Amino acid sequence: MKVTHAHIITIGDEILYGQIVDTNSQWIGIELGKIGVKVVKKTSVGDTEKEILYCLGEAEKNSSIIIITGGLGPTPDDITRNCLAKYFDCELTINDEALSDLLRLYDKYGKKPTEKNRRQAMLPSCCSAISNSLGTASGMWFDRRGKVFISLPGVPYEMKLMMTSHVIPKLKKRFSLPFISHVNINTAGLAETTLAKKLEKFQRALPKHISLAFLPRLGEVRLRLTAMGESKLDLKNNLNSQVKKLESILDNCIYSYDEVSIEMKVGNILRSKKMTLAVAESCTGGYLSHLITTVPGSSDYFLGSIIPYSYDVKMRQLGVKPETLEKYGAVSEPTIIEMANIVRAKFNTDIGVASSGIAGPGGATADKAVGMIWIAYSDKFRTVTKKLQLSDDRLINIQWASRALLNLIRISLPIKARK
Amino acid sequence: MKVTHAHIITIGDEILYGQIVDTNSQWIGIELGKIGVKVVKKTSVGDTEKEILYCLGEAEKNSSIIIITGGLGPTPDDITRNCLAKYFDCELTINDEALSDLLRLYDKYGKKPTEKNRRQAMLPSCCSAISNSLGTASGMWFDRRGKVFISLPGVPYEMKLMMTSHVIPKLKKRFSLPFISHVNINTAGLAETTLAKKLEKFQRALPKHISLAFLPRLGEVRLRLTAMGESKLDLKNNLNSQVKKLESILDNCIYSYDEVSIEMKVGNILRSKKMTLAVAESCTGGYLSHLITTVPGSSDYFLGSIIPYSYDVKMRQLGVKPETLEKYGAVSEPTIIEMANIVRAKFNTDIGVASSGIAGPGGATADKAVGMIWIAYSDKFRTVTKKLQLSDDRLINIQWASRALLNLIRISLPIKARK
Repeated sequence: MKVTHAHIITIGDEILYGQIVDTNSQWIGIELGKIGVKVVKKTSVGDTEKEILYCLGEAEKNSSIIIITGGLGPTPDDITRNCLAKYFDCELTINDEALSDLLRLYDKYGKKPTEKNRRQAMLPSCCSAISNSLGTASGMWFDRRGKVFISLPGVPYEMKLMMTSHVIPKLKKRFSLPFISHVNINTAGLAETTLAKKLEKFQRALPKHISLAFLPRLGEVRLRLTAMGESKLDLKNNLNSQVKKLESILDNCIYSYDEVSIEMKVGNILRSKKMTLAVAESCTGGYLSHLITTVPGSSDYFLGSIIPYSYDVKMRQLGVKPETLEKYGAVSEPTIIEMANIVRAKFNTDIGVASSGIAGPGGATADKAVGMIWIAYSDKFRTVTKKLQLSDDRLINIQWASRALLNLIRISLPIKARK
Repeated sequence: MKVTHAHIITIGDEILYGQIVDTNSQWIGIELGKIGVKVVKKTSVGDTEKEILYCLGEAEKNSSIIIITGGLGPTPDDITRNCLAKYFDCELTINDEALSDLLRLYDKYGKKPTEKNRRQAMLPSCCSAISNSLGTASGMWFDRRGKVFISLPGVPYEMKLMMTSHVIPKLKKRFSLPFISHVNINTAGLAETTLAKKLEKFQRALPKHISLAFLPRLGEVRLRLTAMGESKLDLKNNLNSQVKKLESILDNCIYSYDEVSIEMKVGNILRSKKMTLAVAESCTGGYLSHLITTVPGSSDYFLGSIIPYSYDVKMRQLGVKPETLEKYGAVSEPTIIEMANIVRAKFNTDIGVASSGIAGPGGATADKAVGMIWIAYSDKFRTVTKKLQLSDDRLINIQWASRALLNLIRISLPIKARK
């Protein structure tokens, strides 16, 4: 069947000058791939009418779908709206949908829009508005001569929500796209190379229409199986049988499928088992608690944390024994065990976890290198500890250790609670 | 003086499909900016001859410098070399420089190059080689009809070394380039539209060779002033006088310049004033502490946090009065004031801050909407509170409120401590 081509245009001098990395077009490329649309070209241009108009013409030549991000702000340097009006030769007029979205947003913040603000609801008369519930810049959908032009704001979180909730569904209706089916298998605890070795035979045995991709992240590897074909049902069945094989090879390294993150997975288990969690995190400095609380409803199982960043707070607020700290130091197994047990007792939860280590770049000692981090899990049956030796990079160490700790919770929970 | 334009072309399907983020073109954009070359366009194309040739033609139309990365590997899908030979209509022949580089590299690793390997030294006869001391793919420099085409490998560390040690110096010799200078002015507390209004006159009054850009982020707006001219010193002076004007207009809304984030700025102030900080964060769930502790050396001033996510922890661990919680609720000014004061007293710090709100999507009440968040600052002189009404998006609310709280610290610190 015919492949539908897309051209992504990102607008903004800051991209050309390298002031920001364009992650939008990468994200859009992935999302379009998921629905069987092939990105054939990406272009970044500055905020100049001539360039933008030329670029639109070029894109229309080689693609059926043209997605444009950026240049929708209220300031004079944002000219995408005007350029699109000129390109499609129609007036800029107040778009009622866009205006009511705008007013709703201002109303919510208890503010009155200025004239300049209202200008953001002026759209080319020949487009339909794409609602933006997170910002004041409405999106635009143009459908002309069999080509669809979509204009979205450059602010990533606004663009992403508009893509997933409006643009992708509309594109699926508008174009006859091949069936593409994906399964994401999320694994934790194995490095990419180890995983690749384990899966060599499996990968060789895959049928032609199914492909396997390794998408490594901090401390995790996502496996993506992609199948393309004519019948949705067949694809699903094909994929399911391959997933069964993967499960038999990887067992408990698989923690979830698709968009269920490790923090969601751990949260789901805790909620279903009516178990509660408390955290004492030192070197991870709040990031573990942040991951846990990004999950809506996490207050059902997460009661709270102490971040004992200083020795004094470790002793007085958390209650670690001075002798332990003096004898073994803050970054040690005895200390981490005390931290996990104490926070569980203090907060009166089923589970207590703790982190303590040298995030870096400073703080290394003769016997403790930067990146050395202890993590611990404690419930009323047992305490489990793990020593990590990570990188020289502070942020990576913080994020990696936090995810490792979430995985430690997952695999350490009483067996009955894990499934 | 005439501005020299550049076009960056990145070649590779993996970029189009979003399998990798193209950081090369961002880096190249910055480096070219530093020598006064203006990037006017970036294009990413797949590994197809037709697209690559077309793209080269387009680039030659609008730019004097065309920089191409990727497609130089030894495998058949890497066709950049052949495309360039075709485009410039000349033969692929063994390039002696490239070959000796190649042999030197293999020799260094004690290996013998295969025929396939040697093929990487086959370059179009009309180019000169750009030495690659880190990899087997030689770069190419074409100079024709006043335009310079440069082809580099896509491997970032190879490309970067070749740019800095060979390409940039050659470009400086080859073109008479102006000087370009940037200043980033980081502001917090004003929305983009409000800022734009305040700066209308300033922007209109800017000299031709200086431009102003607005780069909004969560709860912050970065302003970028860019100046281009003949003399580096003049530019610096011109920019400095404009920055002075901005300071007089925006005053305390400016928190830093260039790459100093608000968490760094607050940290620098606290360290220089030998002041210490403790946090009681409820709805921000650890993200504020995370921001603070991403800064190396933050343990100098940050002593720790309590994250009282449940009522019980708010009362028993933090010590908020049950009456306060019952009478006003957790999301209220009296509660937030108590939280900030208590954590300061408990942790014995100079400053205590607190957050409590409805991050969403659940938890709204009749009088408290999702996105309503109270933040508070407390030192021994005073307590400052602020009520935010943010979005429906949980993660955005968490991040926005945390940054707002950092800014509240910055503007609430005893005047003497602020500078």
